[in-house]
Amino acid sequence: MSFRIEKDTMGKVEVPSDKYWGAQTERSRNNFKIGPSASMPLDIVYGFAYLKKAAAYANHELGVLDEKKRDLIASVCDEILDGKHDDQFPLVIWQTGSGTQSNMNVNEVIANRAHEMAGNVIGEGEKTIQPNDDVNKSQSSNDTFPTGMHIAAYKKIIEVTIPGVTKLKETLEKKSKEFKNVVKIGRTHLMDATPLTLGQEFSGYASQLEHGLKALNNTLDHLSELALGGTAVGTGMNTPKGYDVLVAQYIAKFTGLPFKTAENKFEALAAHDAIVESHGALKQLAVSLNKIANDVRMMASGPRSGIGEIIIPANEPGSSIMPGKVNPTQCEALTMVCAQVMGNDVAISVGGTQGHYELNVFKPVMAANFLQSAELLGDACLSFETNCVIGIEPNHEVIKQLLNNSLMLVTALNPKIGYYKSAEIANTAHKNGTTLKEEAVNLGYVTAEEYDEWVKPEDMVGSLK
Amino acid sequence: MSFRIEKDTMGKVEVPSDKYWGAQTERSRNNFKIGPSASMPLDIVYGFAYLKKAAAYANHELGVLDEKKRDLIASVCDEILDGKHDDQFPLVIWQTGSGTQSNMNVNEVIANRAHEMAGNVIGEGEKTIQPNDDVNKSQSSNDTFPTGMHIAAYKKIIEVTIPGVTKLKETLEKKSKEFKNVVKIGRTHLMDATPLTLGQEFSGYASQLEHGLKALNNTLDHLSELALGGTAVGTGMNTPKGYDVLVAQYIAKFTGLPFKTAENKFEALAAHDAIVESHGALKQLAVSLNKIANDVRMMASGPRSGIGEIIIPANEPGSSIMPGKVNPTQCEALTMVCAQVMGNDVAISVGGTQGHYELNVFKPVMAANFLQSAELLGDACLSFETNCVIGIEPNHEVIKQLLNNSLMLVTALNPKIGYYKSAEIANTAHKNGTTLKEEAVNLGYVTAEEYDEWVKPEDMVGSLK
Amino acid sequence: MSFRIEKDTMGKVEVPSDKYWGAQTERSRNNFKIGPSASMPLDIVYGFAYLKKAAAYANHELGVLDEKKRDLIASVCDEILDGKHDDQFPLVIWQTGSGTQSNMNVNEVIANRAHEMAGNVIGEGEKTIQPNDDVNKSQSSNDTFPTGMHIAAYKKIIEVTIPGVTKLKETLEKKSKEFKNVVKIGRTHLMDATPLTLGQEFSGYASQLEHGLKALNNTLDHLSELALGGTAVGTGMNTPKGYDVLVAQYIAKFTGLPFKTAENKFEALAAHDAIVESHGALKQLAVSLNKIANDVRMMASGPRSGIGEIIIPANEPGSSIMPGKVNPTQCEALTMVCAQVMGNDVAISVGGTQGHYELNVFKPVMAANFLQSAELLGDACLSFETNCVIGIEPNHEVIKQLLNNSLMLVTALNPKIGYYKSAEIANTAHKNGTTLKEEAVNLGYVTAEEYDEWVKPEDMVGSLK
Amino acid sequence: MSFRIEKDTMGKVEVPSDKYWGAQTERSRNNFKIGPSASMPLDIVYGFAYLKKAAAYANHELGVLDEKKRDLIASVCDEILDGKHDDQFPLVIWQTGSGTQSNMNVNEVIANRAHEMAGNVIGEGEKTIQPNDDVNKSQSSNDTFPTGMHIAAYKKIIEVTIPGVTKLKETLEKKSKEFKNVVKIGRTHLMDATPLTLGQEFSGYASQLEHGLKALNNTLDHLSELALGGTAVGTGMNTPKGYDVLVAQYIAKFTGLPFKTAENKFEALAAHDAIVESHGALKQLAVSLNKIANDVRMMASGPRSGIGEIIIPANEPGSSIMPGKVNPTQCEALTMVCAQVMGNDVAISVGGTQGHYELNVFKPVMAANFLQSAELLGDACLSFETNCVIGIEPNHEVIKQLLNNSLMLVTALNPKIGYYKSAEIANTAHKNGTTLKEEAVNLGYVTAEEYDEWVKPEDMVGSLK
Repeated sequence: MSFRIEKDTMGKVEVPSDKYWGAQTERSRNNFKIGPSASMPLDIVYGFAYLKKAAAYANHELGVLDEKKRDLIASVCDEILDGKHDDQFPLVIWQTGSGTQSNMNVNEVIANRAHEMAGNVIGEGEKTIQPNDDVNKSQSSNDTFPTGMHIAAYKKIIEVTIPGVTKLKETLEKKSKEFKNVVKIGRTHLMDATPLTLGQEFSGYASQLEHGLKALNNTLDHLSELALGGTAVGTGMNTPKGYDVLVAQYIAKFTGLPFKTAENKFEALAAHDAIVESHGALKQLAVSLNKIANDVRMMASGPRSGIGEIIIPANEPGSSIMPGKVNPTQCEALTMVCAQVMGNDVAISVGGTQGHYELNVFKPVMAANFLQSAELLGDACLSFETNCVIGIEPNHEVIKQLLNNSLMLVTALNPKIGYYKSAEIANTAHKNGTTLKEEAVNLGYVTAEEYDEWVKPEDMVGSLK
Repeated sequence: MSFRIEKDTMGKVEVPSDKYWGAQTERSRNNFKIGPSASMPLDIVYGFAYLKKAAAYANHELGVLDEKKRDLIASVCDEILDGKHDDQFPLVIWQTGSGTQSNMNVNEVIANRAHEMAGNVIGEGEKTIQPNDDVNKSQSSNDTFPTGMHIAAYKKIIEVTIPGVTKLKETLEKKSKEFKNVVKIGRTHLMDATPLTLGQEFSGYASQLEHGLKALNNTLDHLSELALGGTAVGTGMNTPKGYDVLVAQYIAKFTGLPFKTAENKFEALAAHDAIVESHGALKQLAVSLNKIANDVRMMASGPRSGIGEIIIPANEPGSSIMPGKVNPTQCEALTMVCAQVMGNDVAISVGGTQGHYELNVFKPVMAANFLQSAELLGDACLSFETNCVIGIEPNHEVIKQLLNNSLMLVTALNPKIGYYKSAEIANTAHKNGTTLKEEAVNLGYVTAEEYDEWVKPEDMVGSLK
Repeated sequence: MSFRIEKDTMGKVEVPSDKYWGAQTERSRNNFKIGPSASMPLDIVYGFAYLKKAAAYANHELGVLDEKKRDLIASVCDEILDGKHDDQFPLVIWQTGSGTQSNMNVNEVIANRAHEMAGNVIGEGEKTIQPNDDVNKSQSSNDTFPTGMHIAAYKKIIEVTIPGVTKLKETLEKKSKEFKNVVKIGRTHLMDATPLTLGQEFSGYASQLEHGLKALNNTLDHLSELALGGTAVGTGMNTPKGYDVLVAQYIAKFTGLPFKTAENKFEALAAHDAIVESHGALKQLAVSLNKIANDVRMMASGPRSGIGEIIIPANEPGSSIMPGKVNPTQCEALTMVCAQVMGNDVAISVGGTQGHYELNVFKPVMAANFLQSAELLGDACLSFETNCVIGIEPNHEVIKQLLNNSLMLVTALNPKIGYYKSAEIANTAHKNGTTLKEEAVNLGYVTAEEYDEWVKPEDMVGSLK
Repeated sequence: MSFRIEKDTMGKVEVPSDKYWGAQTERSRNNFKIGPSASMPLDIVYGFAYLKKAAAYANHELGVLDEKKRDLIASVCDEILDGKHDDQFPLVIWQTGSGTQSNMNVNEVIANRAHEMAGNVIGEGEKTIQPNDDVNKSQSSNDTFPTGMHIAAYKKIIEVTIPGVTKLKETLEKKSKEFKNVVKIGRTHLMDATPLTLGQEFSGYASQLEHGLKALNNTLDHLSELALGGTAVGTGMNTPKGYDVLVAQYIAKFTGLPFKTAENKFEALAAHDAIVESHGALKQLAVSLNKIANDVRMMASGPRSGIGEIIIPANEPGSSIMPGKVNPTQCEALTMVCAQVMGNDVAISVGGTQGHYELNVFKPVMAANFLQSAELLGDACLSFETNCVIGIEPNHEVIKQLLNNSLMLVTALNPKIGYYKSAEIANTAHKNGTTLKEEAVNLGYVTAEEYDEWVKPEDMVGSLK
């Protein structure tokens, strides 16, 4: 391996010759050998690429960066966004909590690659573009990292989470309509209860996700606020007038998303409540999805000695030892994701509480957990939808049998003969292993005709939609 | 102690003569000796009182309950809301997860007290009002408990949380204006950074709470949805047509809050995502408040060997062994509340994931944790505001001294001489224990006049508001 | 209401005449109106009573407190431990994070009550016993509160948690033996699997609790370390030589528990890892109990349309609307407790992370959450044992039917004909709704005789114990 | 890309020709596109390699696998452990919760590679070794995955966590000795308190880690229990007699670690309390480390306007905008790791609660979170030790100045003149901005000589070690 010498304010550092990064990236690589390398999410790097380009444009427009430099910076940013430099970002999450080193990693890569694009050889001559003075102009790690993190988080929610959850919600709604006449036994406390339709059950799932999506959307306004322009401590020191508003407009333009400058830059550097807020909505979705996936696997349980009311697609052999076994594996993947998101929520909240004075230094851990949750939820919803929900079929025979057996149909008699006599009928039938009708008539509370007229499962599923 | 006999569908039970409750309450008392008695929050009981009265009115209006019964039920509910029967609700949180026993506790107390109000002696004669058939008419525990829980949660947020947080936010804003000219050193990574004003710091705190209140308000729409009318499994079985909408209107009327019937009753019984959602916002507030309280105590630390930039009120002797000590006790109370709220959030999320089929049976634990968080946050904000924030004063002498010492004022030279030379000045001054100005001039990068013109802390606090 | 004047180093305060507490308690009452009053657990107060008495004895023995004062202090402590002064401790958890105010509450009550016992009138004359100089001699809040918290925590575990969990474990073991010949279908992924006995299932539950108790016991050594003797910052300033060891011996003697002085007092004041550690074991128990309670309610589900393999005691009517319904209410109470303990674990961990320099100021919130978990777990285990587990009976008919239906008995053929052919048999039987035997013979892989010899559920439950 | 056809019990699947995996791995790749590919930790794969080899040996020794097959299987396992097949395990964490698909991935890779080693071409001819019947002989995913997970977890703790934490603890102890005469001001509630030595402070940190290591070691016995031999549901079906004990012995032999067969296989499949238990200890370490890192960065804060009592190594430029800034970046990386571990603990606990009947299906998420925590903690401790703690130096000048200023030295007068007069002295000095000595003499409570004799910081740091 060959090396070249790079310098920063602390001196010289050897850097692998085939890499664009510079002294500070290399120092970080050596000083933070914590977990696998390159764990800092690439989405953050891409967020940086958007903002570095936007900053170059804003700086040029405001007269503090010349056009050539702007265009060089922008060109490298475009290459980064095209995925051409993914191997140039070797740093880990577990670095400085401001993400300074990742900011410098981006600055260094842009500077060196720009030097090259300008026709020079890296490591030779004065850098065409200075990492701190040009690429980082009108910026600080303290406002760039949270900006990159909001860009990455917002994009992930828009591109992965919401589409995945929405697709699942729509399929649940479709299924709800499909199953709207399938009357089945209800269960409360896991015990037999009064009937409802399978479609009604699925409407509850869809409604949960509908509410969850609303909750997630409610958080996006806060997440759209960008710290950029606050620089070191939120005062905007060393930025040209109007820069904060302008640079946010450029970011909005380049990403196609409604970003705007944060109203209060001091909050935007020192606290990451927007991340806490949006992840709260992700956690709520996890809570909902856990319920839905659990129901599906319980209703599909069996095939012969469980509940067995629905049939789910068999996508793979289920057991390495039990031949012919099929398992609710998509439910399992999804609920594991839910557990992860619940854990991530705690990591993010703990990080969020710990800002001190002008800076929160838990930025990378908050960003990484957020992005993981947002991606896993979107992916897992899609996987669950495609490989499970869309193929769910009722097992009509089982459903009918379990419904007709139920003692809870007696509830229909409450308004006719009162709760106490109804209870007596149910208890007697349970004790004797007989049917409700037999005991209702035996006890003399209703006639057989009355029973048949009053106790109709299909009438018990409600005036409510 | 004397007893009377009460009956339910399982038989007879001895109940203390001086209590209004009946058989099912007594069974629950005996079967769930878990933690201190009467831990079920009274707010839930009051929520039930609103809904029982509303149900009586709706039932009467829809022709299924006579006027006399309606009025008797309503009268007892009013007594409960006046706090006259607080000792009649002895049950614990750790009972059945649907809260059935607390629903029956309320039903029994209303029935027996109504019997008495109607001129009878409790335990004698046919009950004037039946707990199940009259008080519980058109209801189930499964829809009443979540309704009571939403009423209690919503009221607590409106009456305690929002007022407390708002008051604190307003005082922080007031202080922010008061301190708008107090230029001080900024700190990032706990290390000296470029200056800002104390007012700017406080504006960040106010902004956090502003965002937090917005987030909390965003959740209220979901929380305003009431399960009532869904009865046992969400189908609305045994309710008269139009009941769900009407009963919600009565609840809105009696409470003065914008409650409405839940669009989807299956969700409303089987999941409590609205509780998860609103508590997510409470947790966000806890995260924000933790940051604020931490900053206050760090800035107030000393009095002689800490930071000491602000002075907080001395409300009590601080130490049983160290005479004359004053501590940031309000910050401590508040951050302890924050830790509790973060824990409660996990308890609520865990409970929220566990709904099965038509019912979530973690209702009491979710409700109790929610109400505790909402109350503690409101109270603690008010206490912090009244006993601490309102009395905060800058220690101008310390602030000035720490500001003028700082090496980070060098940042103002970046746009003039570049980042690298600026760093050299700061590093040299640090090494030599000298001032920036001395080294800046010594190194020949600026003249003394330039230094004085360019490095002015008061010019470094920003074009940003 | 009448008042008397009490004084502290900050001046005079009006205190209700009928209360023993003094100025600092009253200040705290007024300055910390956060949540319900008197939320500080009485167990902590009792812990203080033990340690104040022990300190009086140690101080006397080491020559710094006279015998009369020792005996007066000890007498009041005994009264407190007899529960005679429970209404004298009105403070809340949400006070100063060192618990100084609760320490002073105890000091003040002891001083005033001792004054009275010595034949004087409270508020008149020089106090016979000074709260700071006598009752608090050789102490600081910083070492007394953690000592009181360890005493309370250790006692609660010994007196409530361990007995409750042990009783449940023993009953599970008893049931395991009772059910050792009840062969039933196993379930993995909630799906039918190879058989085992009901006794084996219960042995797994007992084993979980056995491991959990071991884990809890492993933590007790750390919890037995007492901070007392460290005073203000851990150095033991203002204590006589040998005091720390001696006072711990007295506490051990008075409580009958193996307390000892902490090896490192700096840790003992500044960190509460022992609380974090022991609560980690409580959380582990919660995790185990959640699994056990879930299994019980799923196996008991029905009675007609669920799994129904076991019958649990019917302790109360289960529904206010569905007559005759019986629910797994004990499982629900227990799993709600588990959710609470999981939440408390986060509150405790968050508090534990936040020690600064010489003191952790999250003591009250950590103590309160710990004590709640320890009590709820012990109580809930006992309730679950007494009202549920002890009465569990197998439903032999259902068990036999579900077992014989299962397609997973085919696994017994793997060693004879290989996994692939076995899978073919199971899949064919599943598709055709036939029995394994029919298809095994039809496919020509085994003869009917071989099938009967090889596929015997009772032979499949293992060579393992 | 070219493909070959692989088969399983559900039919044919196209697999990339250059990969050893088979049909089930490929199905999983297609059915679980959740998050980045190959997220299943390689440590789990290596754990599988140990157990597959051990199973082959045990099976051979017990007469159910011939020697040639044993040796082929063992050879491939050795290759896997040498890292030669790291690219053959493309599956994600978010698959079936039993890890069946990863078990099959290992089985398939071993079978195909063995076929190749035996001189055949993959995809041609009958497989020399069958994935289910040979590689998986006497096994099920249900007992192999938890076994692989225990092997990986135990190894990680032994090889990474314990060495990292121990190294840090030892360096803290070394520093504690080094600093044993550096008397400094103590701080409680962040406020000035009585003195102690810097060495005493560091002894507290070392003691925390000492206790944490003890706690972690206490959990290893549970973690050493292996599920292997339980097969599908814990009964050990289809295993030869004595297999469970023997296979654990082989695993112990091959890994050099004290593994043993689990006493109760039903627990070992259906619950993962050992993982919960050990991770509880990791979380405790995170709590401790957070405190330690926080203290270090607060004491190092400045350099001119903070506390500044210690100097930490400057490893890299600290700011992209503020020249010359040095930050406590190692503290930040470490505390971010602590936040992650606290989140992971919740994910693991949530997973741990959710076992149903004979199987917990949150195995992969529990394992992945555990391994991440164990690795990050070990790595971060080492990084913190090497790049920060080892280089910590006291700033004697600052320490002396802050000590001598302190008003809390007055505490030394308590035993001489009482708490109240001492308080008066401190309060007066605070108000007047004077020294304690001045006011002590002015108020006439002590003479100057007495003051000098009684108030010596170096005498206040304790009789305690």
